[in-house]
Amino acid sequence: MAKGEEVRNKQVLLRDYIAGFPKETDMIMRTGSIQLKPITGLGVSKVLDSDHPDFKEGDFVWGSTGWEEYSLITTPESLFKIHHTDVPLSYYTGILGMPGVTAYVGFYEVCSPKKGEYVFISAASGAVGQLVGQFAKLMGCYVVGSAGTKEKVDLLKNKLGFDEAFNYKEEHDLDAALKRYFPEGIDIYFDNIGGKMLDAVLLNMRLHGRIAACGMISQYNLEKPEGVHNLFYLVTKRIRLEGFVVFDYYHLYPKFLEFILPYIREGKIVYVEDTVEGLESGPAALMGLFTGRNVGKQVVVVARE
Amino acid sequence: MAKGEEVRNKQVLLRDYIAGFPKETDMIMRTGSIQLKPITGLGVSKVLDSDHPDFKEGDFVWGSTGWEEYSLITTPESLFKIHHTDVPLSYYTGILGMPGVTAYVGFYEVCSPKKGEYVFISAASGAVGQLVGQFAKLMGCYVVGSAGTKEKVDLLKNKLGFDEAFNYKEEHDLDAALKRYFPEGIDIYFDNIGGKMLDAVLLNMRLHGRIAACGMISQYNLEKPEGVHNLFYLVTKRIRLEGFVVFDYYHLYPKFLEFILPYIREGKIVYVEDTVEGLESGPAALMGLFTGRNVGKQVVVVARE
Repeated sequence: MAKGEEVRNKQVLLRDYIAGFPKETDMIMRTGSIQLKPITGLGVSKVLDSDHPDFKEGDFVWGSTGWEEYSLITTPESLFKIHHTDVPLSYYTGILGMPGVTAYVGFYEVCSPKKGEYVFISAASGAVGQLVGQFAKLMGCYVVGSAGTKEKVDLLKNKLGFDEAFNYKEEHDLDAALKRYFPEGIDIYFDNIGGKMLDAVLLNMRLHGRIAACGMISQYNLEKPEGVHNLFYLVTKRIRLEGFVVFDYYHLYPKFLEFILPYIREGKIVYVEDTVEGLESGPAALMGLFTGRNVGKQVVVVARE
Repeated sequence: MAKGEEVRNKQVLLRDYIAGFPKETDMIMRTGSIQLKPITGLGVSKVLDSDHPDFKEGDFVWGSTGWEEYSLITTPESLFKIHHTDVPLSYYTGILGMPGVTAYVGFYEVCSPKKGEYVFISAASGAVGQLVGQFAKLMGCYVVGSAGTKEKVDLLKNKLGFDEAFNYKEEHDLDAALKRYFPEGIDIYFDNIGGKMLDAVLLNMRLHGRIAACGMISQYNLEKPEGVHNLFYLVTKRIRLEGFVVFDYYHLYPKFLEFILPYIREGKIVYVEDTVEGLESGPAALMGLFTGRNVGKQVVVVARE
C-alpha cells in the first residue's frame, strides 16, 4: 500500500459512556477514517507499511490495536513482533499473547505453587483459566475448575485435563460445592470473577493459602460491587490475596515463550478458541463474554492472512 | 511452695459460650482449684516450682497462662524465659511480648516497607499500632494513625511521633478523611480493624500497595461480618493483602529482642500501657478493649513482684 493512501475503514465505535452491562446497541458500525477513535483491543496484525527500523512490511505483530480494519500505530513499543509462525497466528491473541502471560505470571509468580497442592480456578475454561489449570497439572497439583455450562465443564474434564469441574450455576450453595471437591481445603485460588465465589472460597482456604486476583468479571457491570464478608479468614488462615496486572510482567515474555512453545508443539498444552468471522461479529462477541456464551478464548477474525 | 500443695486460687471463668459482644456478667469470679478451666491469656509469671531443667524457681517467663493467681504449666515449650529485667516486667505482655513481635513481623516482614512511603495504621494507639507507627518513623516513612478519642489522637501526635492522627469517630466520610491526610495515597496499611475502614483504604491505596491484615476487631462481635466492596482495587492497583499470625514468626523472637532492646534503653521507642490492678479488674478491662476504653496496651496486674 502506498504511504498515505486513504482506505475505506470500517470501525466499531462506542456511542457513549456505558454504565452497567453494555448492550450491542451501544456500539455502532461505521465506515470512517483512522482519525476517529475506535475501541482498542489486543490483536494480531500484519505490517503494511513502516518507517520504524524494527518493523517492516509483511511482519506480523501482536499488541494493542483498534477495532478496525487498518490501524495506524504510533506507539510501536507496545507491539511484540511475532517470530514463530508455525503455530496459529490467532494464538498471539490468547495462549501466546496477553492471556497466556497472565496465566503464566499469575500462577507461577503470584501463586507460588508447590507440587501436590489443591488448586481452584474460576472461569476455568476462559482465555486465562484453561491455561492456569494445565500449568497446575504440569506441576502435579490437584485442579478443579468452575464454569457456567455443562459443555464447559465437560471440556475442562475431558479435554483440558482438570481433575474435576462443576457448573457454578447449578450450585445454590457454593460453600457446599467447594467442600465436595476440596474436602482438604484449597491451597491456591486463581480468581477471575470475585464476588460470591471469593467469599465461599475464603471459607475453604487452607492455612497459608494464596489467592491471585486476576479479574473480577462478576463485579464489572454492577452499579455497586457486592460485599465480601469472610475476609477475616485472611488473618486466621494467614492467606495472601494479591492483585496483579500482566503489564507489569511483560519483561518475562521471552522467558514465557521459551517455556510454552515446546509444550504447544508437543501437544502437551492445548488451547480452546471460540472464533467468529468478521469485524461485524465483534460487538456480539464482546457481549458474549459477560454472559459466558464463548467457549474458550474469544477470537474475532477481521481478515485472514 | 511444696510440690502438690493446694492453694486458694481465684479465677475468672466464662459462664457459657458467648455470641456477640461479651458482657461483664458473662464472666464470674470464683475461688477454685487449677483443675478448672480459666480463660487463657498471655502474661508474665514467676516460676514457683519446676521439674523442667530449663526453668527454675525464681525465673520469670512470659507466654500463655490462665486468668488466675497460680497456673500449672504443662506445655513449657510455649513459654519464653525472660533474660532482661532492666526493663519493666509488664513490657513482656506488650512491647517485648506478643504485640511487639506482631508489630515487628507485620511491618518489616509482611509490609515490605521502604523509606519515604506513606503508612496508615488503624487502632494506632493500641498495643500493636503504637509500635508499628514508631517503626515506620524510624524507617523514614510518613505515618498517620486513626484512633477513637481525642486523647489517643493527641498521644499519637505528641508522644508517639506520628506525623498526623485523626479520630475516626468524628469522620462521617472515611474516604474523605484519608484523602485529606494522604493526598498522594497510601503505600502501606497496617489493618487492625477491618470493615468500613478497609473499604475506604482500598479507595486510597497507591499502585503496588501492601496491606497487612493483623486483626479485624470491628468484626469480631458481629453476627454477620460487614461486606467489603472495593476489592476490585486489589487488581487494578496490584495490591497485596496478607493476613498473618504472630505464632508463625516466634522463631524471630531473639532477633527481635536484639533489635528493640537498645531502642527502649535509649528512649527512642516508647510504650504506652494502661494498667489496672487486681485480677478482679480483668473482666472490665477486657470489655474496655472492644469499646476502646483503654489507652495503650491493657495490662492487668495480678500480683506485684
